[in-house]
Amino acid sequence: MDSVQLGDRVLALFEDGRSFLFKVQDGKLQTHHGIIDLASLVGKNYGSVCETHTKERFYIMKPRLVDEIYKMKRQTQIVYPKDIGFILLMLDVHEGKTVIDAGVGSGAMCAALARAVGTKGKVYAYERREEFKKLAQENLTKWGLADRVEIKLRDISEGFDERVDAIFLDVPDPWNYIRQCYEALNGSGNIAIVCPTTNQVQHVLEEISKFSFVGIEVWESLFRQYKPVADRLRPFDRMVAHTAYMIFARKVMNDWRD
Amino acid sequence: MDSVQLGDRVLALFEDGRSFLFKVQDGKLQTHHGIIDLASLVGKNYGSVCETHTKERFYIMKPRLVDEIYKMKRQTQIVYPKDIGFILLMLDVHEGKTVIDAGVGSGAMCAALARAVGTKGKVYAYERREEFKKLAQENLTKWGLADRVEIKLRDISEGFDERVDAIFLDVPDPWNYIRQCYEALNGSGNIAIVCPTTNQVQHVLEEISKFSFVGIEVWESLFRQYKPVADRLRPFDRMVAHTAYMIFARKVMNDWRD
Amino acid sequence: MDSVQLGDRVLALFEDGRSFLFKVQDGKLQTHHGIIDLASLVGKNYGSVCETHTKERFYIMKPRLVDEIYKMKRQTQIVYPKDIGFILLMLDVHEGKTVIDAGVGSGAMCAALARAVGTKGKVYAYERREEFKKLAQENLTKWGLADRVEIKLRDISEGFDERVDAIFLDVPDPWNYIRQCYEALNGSGNIAIVCPTTNQVQHVLEEISKFSFVGIEVWESLFRQYKPVADRLRPFDRMVAHTAYMIFARKVMNDWRD
Amino acid sequence: MDSVQLGDRVLALFEDGRSFLFKVQDGKLQTHHGIIDLASLVGKNYGSVCETHTKERFYIMKPRLVDEIYKMKRQTQIVYPKDIGFILLMLDVHEGKTVIDAGVGSGAMCAALARAVGTKGKVYAYERREEFKKLAQENLTKWGLADRVEIKLRDISEGFDERVDAIFLDVPDPWNYIRQCYEALNGSGNIAIVCPTTNQVQHVLEEISKFSFVGIEVWESLFRQYKPVADRLRPFDRMVAHTAYMIFARKVMNDWRD
Repeated sequence: MDSVQLGDRVLALFEDGRSFLFKVQDGKLQTHHGIIDLASLVGKNYGSVCETHTKERFYIMKPRLVDEIYKMKRQTQIVYPKDIGFILLMLDVHEGKTVIDAGVGSGAMCAALARAVGTKGKVYAYERREEFKKLAQENLTKWGLADRVEIKLRDISEGFDERVDAIFLDVPDPWNYIRQCYEALNGSGNIAIVCPTTNQVQHVLEEISKFSFVGIEVWESLFRQYKPVADRLRPFDRMVAHTAYMIFARKVMNDWRD
Repeated sequence: MDSVQLGDRVLALFEDGRSFLFKVQDGKLQTHHGIIDLASLVGKNYGSVCETHTKERFYIMKPRLVDEIYKMKRQTQIVYPKDIGFILLMLDVHEGKTVIDAGVGSGAMCAALARAVGTKGKVYAYERREEFKKLAQENLTKWGLADRVEIKLRDISEGFDERVDAIFLDVPDPWNYIRQCYEALNGSGNIAIVCPTTNQVQHVLEEISKFSFVGIEVWESLFRQYKPVADRLRPFDRMVAHTAYMIFARKVMNDWRD
Repeated sequence: MDSVQLGDRVLALFEDGRSFLFKVQDGKLQTHHGIIDLASLVGKNYGSVCETHTKERFYIMKPRLVDEIYKMKRQTQIVYPKDIGFILLMLDVHEGKTVIDAGVGSGAMCAALARAVGTKGKVYAYERREEFKKLAQENLTKWGLADRVEIKLRDISEGFDERVDAIFLDVPDPWNYIRQCYEALNGSGNIAIVCPTTNQVQHVLEEISKFSFVGIEVWESLFRQYKPVADRLRPFDRMVAHTAYMIFARKVMNDWRD
Repeated sequence: MDSVQLGDRVLALFEDGRSFLFKVQDGKLQTHHGIIDLASLVGKNYGSVCETHTKERFYIMKPRLVDEIYKMKRQTQIVYPKDIGFILLMLDVHEGKTVIDAGVGSGAMCAALARAVGTKGKVYAYERREEFKKLAQENLTKWGLADRVEIKLRDISEGFDERVDAIFLDVPDPWNYIRQCYEALNGSGNIAIVCPTTNQVQHVLEEISKFSFVGIEVWESLFRQYKPVADRLRPFDRMVAHTAYMIFARKVMNDWRD
């Protein structure tokens, strides 16, 4: 049986659907349903029921990365789980790969990339704002992913130091860094660019056509959730209508035209 | 520079958009654009241009898993990349995890799971039809993932042999195996079920409510692709309207009601 | 020039996007931007600017039916404009036609039907709850459509008094009234049924197959709105995910099997 | 009972789902299921079964406008029924209204507008290509709507002759005619513009902001159809992903800024 260890991150899930995500250590956590004595959770099985000091019950769950992302401290728009999974697939990021994450922000996508490359891979993360670098570093450390990510405080117009298998580019003016990305990619390497407006997509398409990229694709995703009620199955009333357009391309060494 | 090795799998991409996916070995490949001498590719850099015997040019690319999936030999409906990425996230499958894949089919999702758990993880795959087991085995071997997957020829009504962190259930009557899945999951473990019809979703929701699961969510995804033309940006005329509904849940050890 | 007459319904549109819909008559209207002297609007051109007593400016617009629907007093879920237009087309309701509206509710769809059949057409509306009949009557009178609608306080399980060209059925258990609808339709007449859950759709499809209907179609619509900003064109963040499924069919006199 | 008259347009619907739309007159129609003697249909009830000379059965149905549109001879991209209904609502086109249809094309939207304004209303249709004017005229005549539509062979850069309640603008470069539309609209009048690309939408938004319009909205619609099978209810595999963006606005006489 898999039980809670000191230092684990744990998701406490109350019956009303509210949840708390914390590290198991000495100390107490005040919730709307009473106080949780954190150290008392050590040794409990994951998935089992515990109680606050007022006898309110909660489940102790292992947080998924999506739980961490939804609950993370953020100062920027994040990439949504609905898009993260598809981007990882299209970038073909997996165990042992090297990736550049340009425009780290709060670190959500960086964490997803770091998980995907595993302990043998490496993520080189670039961020030009000190406070975001610090926040991302904190988040990655908290999630145990800091050792496979190197965050650099840098304006990417200067270019990247590495040659990598894949690049994720999430900055307000991605069209200005296509050359730098092209140069940093290995042959056959994959790039993913996200941007919220159609105008940005147009600029990227214009610029990317000047470099030797193939397989250029532009996508958007709509995820719709249903009320999980067997005898009245129907979607919820409202949904996310838009997060970002996703642009994908693959580097080749020279052009058909050369 | 990253160059083609004997035994590599390579995607040959022609200017007309057509592509061929093969293993680099002795022999020749007949294409619509002339013959490729496979062994002659060894040592070429990925992303570079090669020629057929009729001087038709093509790029040599590293196939992504999505390329393999789109080109795989299949005898069943597969899980689409648009859904695969999201399912991996929701199952929180990552390096070192153990997963059950029930209803292997042609092995597309199995491969995605195997990639995600990495060399330290394990996928236990169940399939009751001999020919699908064989096909999945072939596909996984081809993709270099066979060592981390154990495929069992088995009717899952008998239950599973393992206790795992996550289960992916893709069979025509998933509601009949909720008990078996519940028993095979570790506490706090995640399950994902896919089914094409609303009636199936209703049956699953009815049955899953009899076991101690929390966080039950039902989703569907719509991915829309745009023509990548900077000055006439618009979606393609048609799109995939439906693949499958995705149901997610997390095991707890006992119920609020207990 | 088209100017405001006493008795007109007018939409006052303020610069902050807020609006008021009222009848031009003697009296005053208190708004968040000051008082409007209603009678003073008489003779002003539509589309021109007026002022409240505090000199706040507003446009006087002719309300569209969609404005009326969004601002109407309602006690029930209404059919949304995104669906109304399509339903009118599929029912082929136009000048001079006769229609049954079963389950009037607040009268939004009834008004749309009444507008479509014109002065020469007729809508027979059925409603079994006194308070809804009253509310719908008020709304239709307000919109000048009462003369072409006859609202009957009636449980439709008793059947309809008329033979009509089209039926719109919007009740919680539509599958119970398929026979009544079949009998009330002229040959080749069209029926539209709306229901929010997949379970309801399934019941309707099951029941409707017992009668001589052809051209059975089930649809749902998703409307997505964009921020109208030329240099940052993108969808709004959120949208309506679901209102109702729409089922359409056409009556024939007997079955292929007969 | 409603029966077929000489001169009626009739939809013959065969069991295999194929259909034929024709005018009832002297003569014979060759179908894949045998010959239909057209005059023999006179007097038959709509919705009843008839037979070809080889005893193949078909239903005789009243064609809806949507049937006519799907079967019409066309030489241009048409506005789809999924968008037509919504546009009619947003333009608030109803009995007695006057409308300009600029860019008639094959006449589908023109027909919908003509039906909506009824016998007391009027549609002024502008088209600069002789062959489209001819085609639209033929289609409108066929559908009995020609008397309420006046088609002018004209380049709309010269402006319109009328002042109307609503304008529907469907040309490749709508941004070039915003002034002409503004001038032709009555105060509080509604305009709808359709265009397939995001770039066109951006141009329209830029230009329309130079004139006194309020209530500017941009929409797109996605309609998804379900297989009408009670015990396996699910969407069809594929759907229309895109037709056109719809831009709506309302004329005011002067600007907030004036």
